[in-house]
Amino acid sequence: MALFPKRYHPPGTPPGTLRSHADVVPATVEITLVDYSSAGLSVTRNADVPACKASIKQDSITWVQVQGRPTAELMHTLGDAFDLHPLALEDVLNAGQRPKLEPYDGQLFLVMHLPGFEDGRITLHQISVFMLRNYLVTFCPCPRDPFASIVKRLEAAGTRVRQQGIDYLLYSIIDLVIDQSFPVLEHFGVQIETIEEAIVAGPDRDVLDHVHQVKRNMILLRRSLWPQREVVSQLLRDVDGWISEPTLIYLRDCYDHTVQIMDLVESYRDMSASLLDIYMSSASMRLNDVMRVLTVIATIFIPLTFITGIYGMNFGDNAASPWAMPELHWYYGYPMVWLLFIGVVAGMLYWFRRKRWI
Amino acid sequence: MALFPKRYHPPGTPPGTLRSHADVVPATVEITLVDYSSAGLSVTRNADVPACKASIKQDSITWVQVQGRPTAELMHTLGDAFDLHPLALEDVLNAGQRPKLEPYDGQLFLVMHLPGFEDGRITLHQISVFMLRNYLVTFCPCPRDPFASIVKRLEAAGTRVRQQGIDYLLYSIIDLVIDQSFPVLEHFGVQIETIEEAIVAGPDRDVLDHVHQVKRNMILLRRSLWPQREVVSQLLRDVDGWISEPTLIYLRDCYDHTVQIMDLVESYRDMSASLLDIYMSSASMRLNDVMRVLTVIATIFIPLTFITGIYGMNFGDNAASPWAMPELHWYYGYPMVWLLFIGVVAGMLYWFRRKRWI
Amino acid sequence: MALFPKRYHPPGTPPGTLRSHADVVPATVEITLVDYSSAGLSVTRNADVPACKASIKQDSITWVQVQGRPTAELMHTLGDAFDLHPLALEDVLNAGQRPKLEPYDGQLFLVMHLPGFEDGRITLHQISVFMLRNYLVTFCPCPRDPFASIVKRLEAAGTRVRQQGIDYLLYSIIDLVIDQSFPVLEHFGVQIETIEEAIVAGPDRDVLDHVHQVKRNMILLRRSLWPQREVVSQLLRDVDGWISEPTLIYLRDCYDHTVQIMDLVESYRDMSASLLDIYMSSASMRLNDVMRVLTVIATIFIPLTFITGIYGMNFGDNAASPWAMPELHWYYGYPMVWLLFIGVVAGMLYWFRRKRWI
Amino acid sequence: MALFPKRYHPPGTPPGTLRSHADVVPATVEITLVDYSSAGLSVTRNADVPACKASIKQDSITWVQVQGRPTAELMHTLGDAFDLHPLALEDVLNAGQRPKLEPYDGQLFLVMHLPGFEDGRITLHQISVFMLRNYLVTFCPCPRDPFASIVKRLEAAGTRVRQQGIDYLLYSIIDLVIDQSFPVLEHFGVQIETIEEAIVAGPDRDVLDHVHQVKRNMILLRRSLWPQREVVSQLLRDVDGWISEPTLIYLRDCYDHTVQIMDLVESYRDMSASLLDIYMSSASMRLNDVMRVLTVIATIFIPLTFITGIYGMNFGDNAASPWAMPELHWYYGYPMVWLLFIGVVAGMLYWFRRKRWI
Amino acid sequence: MALFPKRYHPPGTPPGTLRSHADVVPATVEITLVDYSSAGLSVTRNADVPACKASIKQDSITWVQVQGRPTAELMHTLGDAFDLHPLALEDVLNAGQRPKLEPYDGQLFLVMHLPGFEDGRITLHQISVFMLRNYLVTFCPCPRDPFASIVKRLEAAGTRVRQQGIDYLLYSIIDLVIDQSFPVLEHFGVQIETIEEAIVAGPDRDVLDHVHQVKRNMILLRRSLWPQREVVSQLLRDVDGWISEPTLIYLRDCYDHTVQIMDLVESYRDMSASLLDIYMSSASMRLNDVMRVLTVIATIFIPLTFITGIYGMNFGDNAASPWAMPELHWYYGYPMVWLLFIGVVAGMLYWFRRKRWI
Repeated sequence: MALFPKRYHPPGTPPGTLRSHADVVPATVEITLVDYSSAGLSVTRNADVPACKASIKQDSITWVQVQGRPTAELMHTLGDAFDLHPLALEDVLNAGQRPKLEPYDGQLFLVMHLPGFEDGRITLHQISVFMLRNYLVTFCPCPRDPFASIVKRLEAAGTRVRQQGIDYLLYSIIDLVIDQSFPVLEHFGVQIETIEEAIVAGPDRDVLDHVHQVKRNMILLRRSLWPQREVVSQLLRDVDGWISEPTLIYLRDCYDHTVQIMDLVESYRDMSASLLDIYMSSASMRLNDVMRVLTVIATIFIPLTFITGIYGMNFGDNAASPWAMPELHWYYGYPMVWLLFIGVVAGMLYWFRRKRWI
Repeated sequence: MALFPKRYHPPGTPPGTLRSHADVVPATVEITLVDYSSAGLSVTRNADVPACKASIKQDSITWVQVQGRPTAELMHTLGDAFDLHPLALEDVLNAGQRPKLEPYDGQLFLVMHLPGFEDGRITLHQISVFMLRNYLVTFCPCPRDPFASIVKRLEAAGTRVRQQGIDYLLYSIIDLVIDQSFPVLEHFGVQIETIEEAIVAGPDRDVLDHVHQVKRNMILLRRSLWPQREVVSQLLRDVDGWISEPTLIYLRDCYDHTVQIMDLVESYRDMSASLLDIYMSSASMRLNDVMRVLTVIATIFIPLTFITGIYGMNFGDNAASPWAMPELHWYYGYPMVWLLFIGVVAGMLYWFRRKRWI
Repeated sequence: MALFPKRYHPPGTPPGTLRSHADVVPATVEITLVDYSSAGLSVTRNADVPACKASIKQDSITWVQVQGRPTAELMHTLGDAFDLHPLALEDVLNAGQRPKLEPYDGQLFLVMHLPGFEDGRITLHQISVFMLRNYLVTFCPCPRDPFASIVKRLEAAGTRVRQQGIDYLLYSIIDLVIDQSFPVLEHFGVQIETIEEAIVAGPDRDVLDHVHQVKRNMILLRRSLWPQREVVSQLLRDVDGWISEPTLIYLRDCYDHTVQIMDLVESYRDMSASLLDIYMSSASMRLNDVMRVLTVIATIFIPLTFITGIYGMNFGDNAASPWAMPELHWYYGYPMVWLLFIGVVAGMLYWFRRKRWI
Repeated sequence: MALFPKRYHPPGTPPGTLRSHADVVPATVEITLVDYSSAGLSVTRNADVPACKASIKQDSITWVQVQGRPTAELMHTLGDAFDLHPLALEDVLNAGQRPKLEPYDGQLFLVMHLPGFEDGRITLHQISVFMLRNYLVTFCPCPRDPFASIVKRLEAAGTRVRQQGIDYLLYSIIDLVIDQSFPVLEHFGVQIETIEEAIVAGPDRDVLDHVHQVKRNMILLRRSLWPQREVVSQLLRDVDGWISEPTLIYLRDCYDHTVQIMDLVESYRDMSASLLDIYMSSASMRLNDVMRVLTVIATIFIPLTFITGIYGMNFGDNAASPWAMPELHWYYGYPMVWLLFIGVVAGMLYWFRRKRWI
Repeated sequence: MALFPKRYHPPGTPPGTLRSHADVVPATVEITLVDYSSAGLSVTRNADVPACKASIKQDSITWVQVQGRPTAELMHTLGDAFDLHPLALEDVLNAGQRPKLEPYDGQLFLVMHLPGFEDGRITLHQISVFMLRNYLVTFCPCPRDPFASIVKRLEAAGTRVRQQGIDYLLYSIIDLVIDQSFPVLEHFGVQIETIEEAIVAGPDRDVLDHVHQVKRNMILLRRSLWPQREVVSQLLRDVDGWISEPTLIYLRDCYDHTVQIMDLVESYRDMSASLLDIYMSSASMRLNDVMRVLTVIATIFIPLTFITGIYGMNFGDNAASPWAMPELHWYYGYPMVWLLFIGVVAGMLYWFRRKRWI
């Protein structure tokens, strides 16, 4: 997930301008045409635009899926064919919009974010949905088809999605996109628990990177998923005439999921902040232990070494002076030094224990 | 309490799908049928579904308690028998929902979290309650029967719960679930005070784990208990016709408890954050003390050892040079070195005291 | 102030149950009966319940003060005599409720917290007030009579509290309870300023405890005083018919005090958080200084000691080798070593100064 | 600015009690009487109360300025003369109220805080303003006259303040009080930038005190200026009939200033919190550097000194054993030790460089 | 960006006073007159005020651009010529206002902030816009013309900005100003990612400055861009009659951008706070590593050096005593000392490894 996800035209460009971004590869776009009524269903892979246009003129429900990143020219063609609002088309092209719901005249335009894993990394793809009276146009720059499970449900004649109207299809898409957050959040839940165990076991540098990764991802997921909740809430309240009463009950269930997702994201943020605190405390605790050992060992040996230094001095050679280290010549001189050593060590250990350093 | 508590079907599964989770053991489910009116009461343990169905057809108030984790098939049977909404059934099966109140057509569906202790750990069980006109169905995956005290009150003929309608029974269940937070919070209150005393006595590694445990539990309890407050508030305001006027007064008392519980959770969070700060300050203070002692001892002995090093050098053997450490041959050479030692130590101690390091 | 202040019956106990807590000593309860009108006043210490009951039947305003912690039996008797709501009686018995205003049918029930000092510690006592048409019942578990100043004002015939109705008496009690926060907050204001000075003077361990005490008390005071503000605000807005227009002006003044109290509590919390930051910075700064001195002294003496070590080696005895420390036998060998010492020290000092460590 | 700014009577004192505080010096109060209409203006310094009272009976606009801290007796006299509400008078006497607007019957009472510098310290003086139909009474305990610039504008006949009504005079006073925050905030802006530069240059103890001073002042200013914004907002919305339409436009401009002031205070708080973080990071970074140097120097010399210690041992004297340090008697023994020294140093330096410690 | 951006007149100055600030250079002001209708367009650089005044009397749409910082005299002239409100003129002169929308009688006054780069630093210029019925006056103190791209679009006859009314011109200006935030935020996004990589690679002092720069800029950008969002929102809701229905759709798109900008700013703030935490943890981790190495090396060599010190003492010379270090005279004395060395080192290494310090 990029920190700055938005693509934009240079400031001052007229609104609704469609201009391909440099990294668009036209060849990868694939249009799938799904046309169904309770009577029958047809799925056309690699459909062309005129076929789609013909399909929307019929009474059945038409779903045009555009997968991949279309060029500006293709967007123009699609916009003209399906009567899509230019400002919305610009938002499809300039991917990285925040999730939103725009009610234009005679059409609803939704932007949502589809979370997922690619090569072990979290990705967020912008799903754009246009809903008109009897057809739906979806844009998805994802490499894999995200809607396969819905098409499969459509293929079975008796399913609710096949029986109900276009608003239920819209709900199914939204539900799918939102529920994709659960595996992602489960993944992070497991990761946080792994980090917790690692911190208890003992801090190491990798833990720090992992905590940061979780925090970073939570910040970015929050930025993305918070407005998604708002989108569903708006659908529930503000778009008279688009969503039928029975579908509203399902959408409410969906809204409930967005609330739960936000709860999870927030508690993960709190948890990762807490983990960082614990990690830092834990690390400073260990440093403390290390320092204490150093202190004890060093402060025990420093005076001892000083004493050996004294008797290493060459004053003893001065035979003329009785002051010249007479200890060196005493019969029990050397054992007495050892007694001195032992006494110093014992005194120090007693003092350290009283100070509760060991 | 798990970080990611929710069970879910794979994204794209149709809403209302009932599918058993892998870890469900069907044998452990027990259905208790409680049927009462002001005239009489019958309690049937291990009741079967047809008996329950028969019971709800009568005028009396029927309470069907499902304890344990039912399979998808059992849920289907129960849903058909009692007319429960499929979306709600899915929420019962996929435990780990956030507390919520869903008014479906002709029925209220409540999810609540019952906190408790099991083997010294905090647990949160999802209590699901369906309320229809004259019967109540409750689901609880807990190992022990949480509602024993209510059944006992029902057994006494003159009690208010026996005299009043089904809404008072609902209130009694909610009240019980909410009040279970008090022993849990009292437990954490005691734990925080224990930690406070431990930090004053002196920081050790265990304190850190305990603080983290408190913080973690507060984050998770908050996520769970905050929406519970919302549930009671919704019951007070939004469900016309379900709750009678006299019961509302009791529910208001209940709401008051949820507010107090949130106050406690919030202040515990603040306290544990504060404790971590104090702990870290305290630990760094002790490190400080240790370092100061090391500095003082080391800086006192380092110059002394240097002096002994000087007079340990073998220049004194050079009898040919008057410059070759004549001190070694002075009559008072050795005592003078001791004077030097004492002078250096005294000077250092004076300097350290002036700097307020000792 | 306890972290978990609430007393509670075991979950599942029917609402309105009155059961004495184990630590209640019945002997300490004292009932004071104050009966007044603009015409006259009578104060009866150690009144009994029948006398009180007789008094409320008259036209005058009756104020029954129950001081100390009553038993469940006494609560029953009082509840029956004065027509008090059972849920409210339970809240009086289970002290530690959050401040609240409950309008029951024909009576107002208020819970407030009276802050104070006892043996140098902050205490919070729950003041419970029942207001009915012409009498007021107050419960206070405090050891000393908190309302002495109001009774004294009642004794003077011309005072406003004597002339006005029962709502003004209620206001006087609320005003007294709220204003008791000012001496407490002044005490903490002085304490924070003392801590500030102590931190500037130099950090020590006690400061840490004091900062923690302030933070802890602010967290607990906030939990207690915030809902108190809500109580006064509710009295101003929501209880039609209980408070007369002139008294509302005085209550508004009271509300103003609660707002100011919350402002003080919040700014004290911010201040104590800031003080902890400063304290930690300051302590780490001092550690820094100590470390720097250690570094400088140690790094100066370490090479010097190494040099003395070199010339303390016994290679010089090998008369057969010209390579065997010829310096030892040079005429100016020893002074040259001193020059080396001085050179090393000077070089180091120059280097340290350039690095701005000294 | 004091942490606990409020003066208060002992709890239980009847509301509206006027009692002088111990530190009030009556002699310092000065009353200025300003009386003007579009026709003429008279300014009387050291006016007495009867003169003021006579003035307010006329048609002209009268402004009575009370500068200094009046005694309770003077407050009584003024209250009677100008019909001021007793509760408001108490608030004037008990300075340290939070800014507020109280609409009493037939009068508006405003409390505002005038920030300023006195002897290089920030001060906050409580400005109290009573507005009645055709006169204004202001109280200011400041040592200097804050309203000189308004009186000067009044002296010029053609100015707007002279032409407009009493509401414009009130606006002029509010505008003056609010705009006094700008120099204060500019001062802190400069101070924060100075601190930023000081931290980049290198952390020292003074920086810490300055950051704390800024944080402290922002906490206290925020507590004071936040409600001031509310006062202006209330004036704009809630006081029908007091402020004329044209003056409202000017007040809106004023409100805009209060919003900008709060923005500045908030961003300064954020900045000073950020600075403290940076400062602490920076200090710990320097400690890091110091420690690294110590480590490098110490770990290089420790093994060298150990080697010199070996050859300082007196085993070489044991001529009877070939194991007794034969190196001492080798021809190239001493140079070989030097080679060993150089080898150890080179190896260590290589190792440290690989670890990127130097 | 300055911390205290506002210019202000001394408190007490009458509102609407126009006074040049000391640093204004009159020569640099340039007025551009753009006059257009769907029929034609004329652009006059360095226009004079009378020409502009003549232009606004016609039916066409007139746009007067004032670039540079005008003197008070010029502001007077312009105010008179175009009928601009004095309070608004003062806000233009006293640059550094927060973004706002002021609806004066017959005119809208907008303040916005144009972010940009100048010499590698972020700048924020105040754009002031007056909108009247058929003309627009814009003030911009920027060195370069920010509106060139709009004028270019006006030059093409068929563009929407040329065809639509003055409200669309206003929208185009607002859109341009808001979209200028995207390059600035993209720049910071890249910078944060660079910092992330630098921290992973290893902490150094520069990282700290960069993190602080990002935090600082986010605090200041937030202060500036948050009210800008409010301005667009007010335009959408509160200014009846000024903005036509079709333009509202475009403005809504614009509002969407302001929301996304705030999301980015907030997530960057969170990210930079998180980065600082990680940086500090990382730095303290490295210190930890360094300390551990020091401890290990020092604690290994300290006892060894003590042993060499023992055998460096001159007790061995006392031939008269058998207690006088007989080891010195043992046949295998020296090798035994080496065995002792090796034993001590091995024991220590074993102990350290068990403690997991190496």
